[in-house]
Amino acid sequence: MSAAEDIGSLQEIRDLLKVLPEADEEAAEIARARQTQLTKPAGSLGRLEDLAIWLAAWQGRNPPSLDRPYTAVFAGNHGIAAKGVSAYPSEVTAQMVQNFIEGGAAVNQLCSLANADLRVYEMALEEPTGDISEGPAMDEEDCARAMAYGMMAVESGIDVLALGEMGIGNTTAAAALCHGLFGGEAADWVGPGTGLDDARRAEKTALVARAVELHRDALDDPLEALCRLGGRELAAIAGAVLAARMARTPVMLDGYACTAAAAVLYALDPKSLDHCQVSHMSAEPGHKRLLARIGKRPLVDLDMRLGEASGAMVAVLLLKAAVACHNGMATFDDAGVSGPAE
Amino acid sequence: MSAAEDIGSLQEIRDLLKVLPEADEEAAEIARARQTQLTKPAGSLGRLEDLAIWLAAWQGRNPPSLDRPYTAVFAGNHGIAAKGVSAYPSEVTAQMVQNFIEGGAAVNQLCSLANADLRVYEMALEEPTGDISEGPAMDEEDCARAMAYGMMAVESGIDVLALGEMGIGNTTAAAALCHGLFGGEAADWVGPGTGLDDARRAEKTALVARAVELHRDALDDPLEALCRLGGRELAAIAGAVLAARMARTPVMLDGYACTAAAAVLYALDPKSLDHCQVSHMSAEPGHKRLLARIGKRPLVDLDMRLGEASGAMVAVLLLKAAVACHNGMATFDDAGVSGPAE
Repeated sequence: MSAAEDIGSLQEIRDLLKVLPEADEEAAEIARARQTQLTKPAGSLGRLEDLAIWLAAWQGRNPPSLDRPYTAVFAGNHGIAAKGVSAYPSEVTAQMVQNFIEGGAAVNQLCSLANADLRVYEMALEEPTGDISEGPAMDEEDCARAMAYGMMAVESGIDVLALGEMGIGNTTAAAALCHGLFGGEAADWVGPGTGLDDARRAEKTALVARAVELHRDALDDPLEALCRLGGRELAAIAGAVLAARMARTPVMLDGYACTAAAAVLYALDPKSLDHCQVSHMSAEPGHKRLLARIGKRPLVDLDMRLGEASGAMVAVLLLKAAVACHNGMATFDDAGVSGPAE
Repeated sequence: MSAAEDIGSLQEIRDLLKVLPEADEEAAEIARARQTQLTKPAGSLGRLEDLAIWLAAWQGRNPPSLDRPYTAVFAGNHGIAAKGVSAYPSEVTAQMVQNFIEGGAAVNQLCSLANADLRVYEMALEEPTGDISEGPAMDEEDCARAMAYGMMAVESGIDVLALGEMGIGNTTAAAALCHGLFGGEAADWVGPGTGLDDARRAEKTALVARAVELHRDALDDPLEALCRLGGRELAAIAGAVLAARMARTPVMLDGYACTAAAAVLYALDPKSLDHCQVSHMSAEPGHKRLLARIGKRPLVDLDMRLGEASGAMVAVLLLKAAVACHNGMATFDDAGVSGPAE
């Protein structure tokens, strides 16, 4: 929160990236030692062990806790949606925000199951960002404001911050951002989104290629790429990831659009996502390529492609499993169980 | 339960396999229709949608429920453990059973998290089965009794039955069973188990090869293979899977040893595991090959290799997520959300 209040321009974001805090290695070491004492063969809980140690490291304490996950979903609208890049009309963004508020969406059910606080951040839905195939999505001030808005979502004392988005047209922005940041062909990064047929997907690909071509000379700077090709909810997610890092709060990223937003920080400094896990492998095909590019292995692969933090909340259930085992299991000594024979 | 009480011999198991009930297609159809009405793009919850429909189909009702998962862990000892096929001594089986009873094991923490009833079935731990590299594990009567014991674990009204095992030496029995049922080389099916080094793994492989060679002439019959190469906890799991099928109870299988036990039924009739999901891909390398052989895609892949239903319970959390979304989400009509634009 202290960090967020200071953000008036992207320069201040750049300054924060120079002072990223690291994980608490002492807490990690204590957690690692505990794992070797629990009543199971060493390493046999696989990634659940790694997750418990990772949580301890970023929460800066052993045992780690996961009583109150905090889920933030940012919603924005995109000028390029008017070009038909989504199967759904733009008004669905606001309708789904209403659905989140009324408790009817997937993320509501998953937050109830995980005992998570859900906050939904509506970002000027009535004023879509600029059409990226014709001009910038946002100017620097709008982008900095959106990032600061995301930063303010990070309250103190959060066990884990699960991030998600809602925004008709935002897999187009995500694809443009990835294409702009990481190269390749536009088609590498474009998928069916909410359900385009092949012909409309080809149109979407052409628009992504045109957008990246149009903004080419600004794309060496990842924050400038975010202004030009992103969207408010994506900028807010990048801000939230950064603020979480400043507070050493562990983060669970959702699918393609969410990871693309976080990847802006990765492009600025590959170490900036060390406090983040990627929850799931989206069925949106660009996500696999993006995860390879940023070196993250997702926790589950369930063919999901909904966004709204739904994948993140499924993965939070795995975090809960990891913490339950780590904190609750008996040690070999406690239980009088023999160790390996030799 | 009615089925279990009748089991006096393996012939009665064979008779049950001729009258396997099918899923309730009507309930599945109602669940499938509901999925298309929920406030999300069609198919965007991926495998969570399939799981909800699968539960409805086998529970025979929509909405499906998952309030009280039931977890059964069967424990047995293996004569071949005396040959050093595990990193741990045989007394650990009984010590871990005590740990389950006292609530200190991984599965206890995961059952608490999932609000599951955990029952542990101790199967004559003081009398290990025969050493499969020198003779049969069990005679037909012992095997039939173990299967009947497993069948009795299936009470009526279970939402989902999660199955697991504990038994020092049982990845050796599992490997022998898979090699006997599905061929290949012994080395294809043998892994480090609880943590063997390469030299001891090679000895384990040689013992598996010897066991399968010794019993070769009996292996055309999968139930005979179970008697010769299996173990009591594996026979009990096969029995529980079959009894669950008779009761149309959905089953969540755990890792390598558990799936190998269920694969005996697959070898008798490939349709006999239609009511089962495989929870996770074990780090034990034979599991991947086994899943390819029986045509099952695991739900998660978290490098786990603990057994004791730990992977099954992680996957039960995903079932809970599936049911929460399926049962709790608003429909497009309820929420006033627009459908696809065209």
